[in-house]
Amino acid sequence: MALKGKMVIGQSGGPTTVINQSLVGAILEARKHEAITGILGARHGIAGIMKEDFIDLTTQSGSDLECLANTPAAGLGSVRLKPGKAECERVFEVFKKNDVRYFFYIGGNDSAETAHIIAEMAKEENYDFCTIHLPKTIDNDLRVTDHCPGFASAARFVALAFMGDDRDNAALSGVKINVVMGRHAGFLTAASALARQDESDGPHLIYLPERVFDVASFQQDVKSVVAKYGRCVVAVSEGVGDKDGNPIASTGERDSHGNVQLSGTGALGDFLSGKVKEAYAGESVRVRADTFGYLQRSFPTIVSEVDAREARESGAFGVKQAVEQGENGSVAIRRLSSDPYASDYFITPLSTVAREATEMKDEYISAEGNDVTEAWLTYLRPLVGPMPRLGKLF
Amino acid sequence: MALKGKMVIGQSGGPTTVINQSLVGAILEARKHEAITGILGARHGIAGIMKEDFIDLTTQSGSDLECLANTPAAGLGSVRLKPGKAECERVFEVFKKNDVRYFFYIGGNDSAETAHIIAEMAKEENYDFCTIHLPKTIDNDLRVTDHCPGFASAARFVALAFMGDDRDNAALSGVKINVVMGRHAGFLTAASALARQDESDGPHLIYLPERVFDVASFQQDVKSVVAKYGRCVVAVSEGVGDKDGNPIASTGERDSHGNVQLSGTGALGDFLSGKVKEAYAGESVRVRADTFGYLQRSFPTIVSEVDAREARESGAFGVKQAVEQGENGSVAIRRLSSDPYASDYFITPLSTVAREATEMKDEYISAEGNDVTEAWLTYLRPLVGPMPRLGKLF
Repeated sequence: MALKGKMVIGQSGGPTTVINQSLVGAILEARKHEAITGILGARHGIAGIMKEDFIDLTTQSGSDLECLANTPAAGLGSVRLKPGKAECERVFEVFKKNDVRYFFYIGGNDSAETAHIIAEMAKEENYDFCTIHLPKTIDNDLRVTDHCPGFASAARFVALAFMGDDRDNAALSGVKINVVMGRHAGFLTAASALARQDESDGPHLIYLPERVFDVASFQQDVKSVVAKYGRCVVAVSEGVGDKDGNPIASTGERDSHGNVQLSGTGALGDFLSGKVKEAYAGESVRVRADTFGYLQRSFPTIVSEVDAREARESGAFGVKQAVEQGENGSVAIRRLSSDPYASDYFITPLSTVAREATEMKDEYISAEGNDVTEAWLTYLRPLVGPMPRLGKLF
Repeated sequence: MALKGKMVIGQSGGPTTVINQSLVGAILEARKHEAITGILGARHGIAGIMKEDFIDLTTQSGSDLECLANTPAAGLGSVRLKPGKAECERVFEVFKKNDVRYFFYIGGNDSAETAHIIAEMAKEENYDFCTIHLPKTIDNDLRVTDHCPGFASAARFVALAFMGDDRDNAALSGVKINVVMGRHAGFLTAASALARQDESDGPHLIYLPERVFDVASFQQDVKSVVAKYGRCVVAVSEGVGDKDGNPIASTGERDSHGNVQLSGTGALGDFLSGKVKEAYAGESVRVRADTFGYLQRSFPTIVSEVDAREARESGAFGVKQAVEQGENGSVAIRRLSSDPYASDYFITPLSTVAREATEMKDEYISAEGNDVTEAWLTYLRPLVGPMPRLGKLF
């Protein structure tokens, strides 16, 4: 018989355009099960649980939930807090006090770690409890799963942005640098390659955090592309670093995870613009840089259909496995086929997802380290969905 | 009888997502008229005409043209050149040599001026010639016309971007500054107000180049909003200046029009972030800035339906009036009704559009100068089209 009690669900880390799909998928599945005696939404994740700041999620209408599912960013509020032992103990205390038997945490590898610590506490105290981590990250850097809900929609935004920006650059030639989110993993920056329709289309250069960024090579690469096409569009990850692993440019500010602030500033783009101008010392060249920033993870209506569906289904799957099978772990996606695309879901132990993240495989990165491979596009295409066709006169 | 001869069409200035609609509207209309003996597309506007760098626009299939119409950025290539007398004489020489009797120039007020100079030359030499300026600018700053093709699609991008970003900011609270394009006119920045669904939604502050930007007032405004809502989303035009009209922050670079470079750099956003942090000296506050950059004018699929239709129709109208009525001038849009929305087109003399641009009316800007009015939203809404509805849990 299924474990009976309340469930708590929370959202953590940087929001995505489909994180509310996972939330709604989980809520609608939970409402089907009598074993779940209450559905509590934690406001701002762990921070809300500690304060017992909950929203009753049993009362919203189906149409309100559908509207929420299509709204970007965490509807429950999110949090960047990395809880220590004391915080986790407080969370567990709140759970016991409220007869919470199910905990669903939507987030990345840090959130999986939080879930893991709490699951271990419950085990130690022999408190009957199911913890499920529901994956979410535009960075696509979780281990085990083929890909992460949230990634493909952000990838679609990036690919479309480069598609339009490349036409803009073709109309008014020059060097254009676009800085893409992704601290340690280049997946999102690499998605820019989907913008290409013809051989001469940008992005002409793609720099990922998986490879050392050398300023002199970058300058040389840009000059080579300009010599060939009379213009150059560059995709660069906000996380690129030098040979010692130091960020190329940053404000120096750090968050509670000890991460240097990379997003929400134009520092890297402006730095690289300066380096291109320096490389053309004396010559007149139009150089511009944009930092795509938070739009990549929050732009309404730019959503991958596969991503929205998988985010929804992974939320529902996690709840179902917890209630019906008493499972603990993280929901992962298994790719069954790329063409036609097909996938299913499974549960992997929290320890296999928590803490450490992953990055792009070598086979996805070109030998020169400034582009992606066909294998990458084969992986990416079905996730992002069909791209519009561009019309050209020359 | 209609004037018989070839036509030249060109695109100029910053591209938009619907500038190719105007091009395709003009081409399809021109193909209906026997008086037009050839349709020449000038590559990169005036620069291409001077080099006789033309594309034959009589050969493309209807489906290829439809594809082009839905592709952002100038399909013929654009140019930022402000021609002097010598350049205009060269253009006119090329026109005479090639029996060009119609010139259609798609662009803003600078392009209208170029068209005006060439029209005057033809008049002086008694060369039978029709010149039509087809309006285009995301800045919406042309005189006479109710609004400009290209603006509403960029406005839709900005409004959607703020809608999603405001949810992101609500999920992870802090101060978020978004820098929007618009050198002298605040129309595009003001479009951010359409993102609001509820009273507490951002943008909470809107700063336009029509008002003096005072850093101390800005700091105070932000602190007041944060005190009320625990967070603050700011829309600021890239063109805001101090009481002497100097830009608040820029790279100092100038284009051929003598304009300081404002886009393609994160300088203003980073400067304002620093000012907010300064205002909270000692207190911990999360401050981020994004500069929307070129995505505003080039993002594929984010198009206002009204804008796409009007861009197409204004191109066709210009050609029809030139061939059937022998008119010279600039195509303008007359608003017949806001609800339901209805408009038509008319020709205004080139001199009424050329050179000087316009800016937002006082009635559109709040008394405090940091927000817009209901009159502005009434003007804007039908142009941008219906916005998605957001789902919220609190």
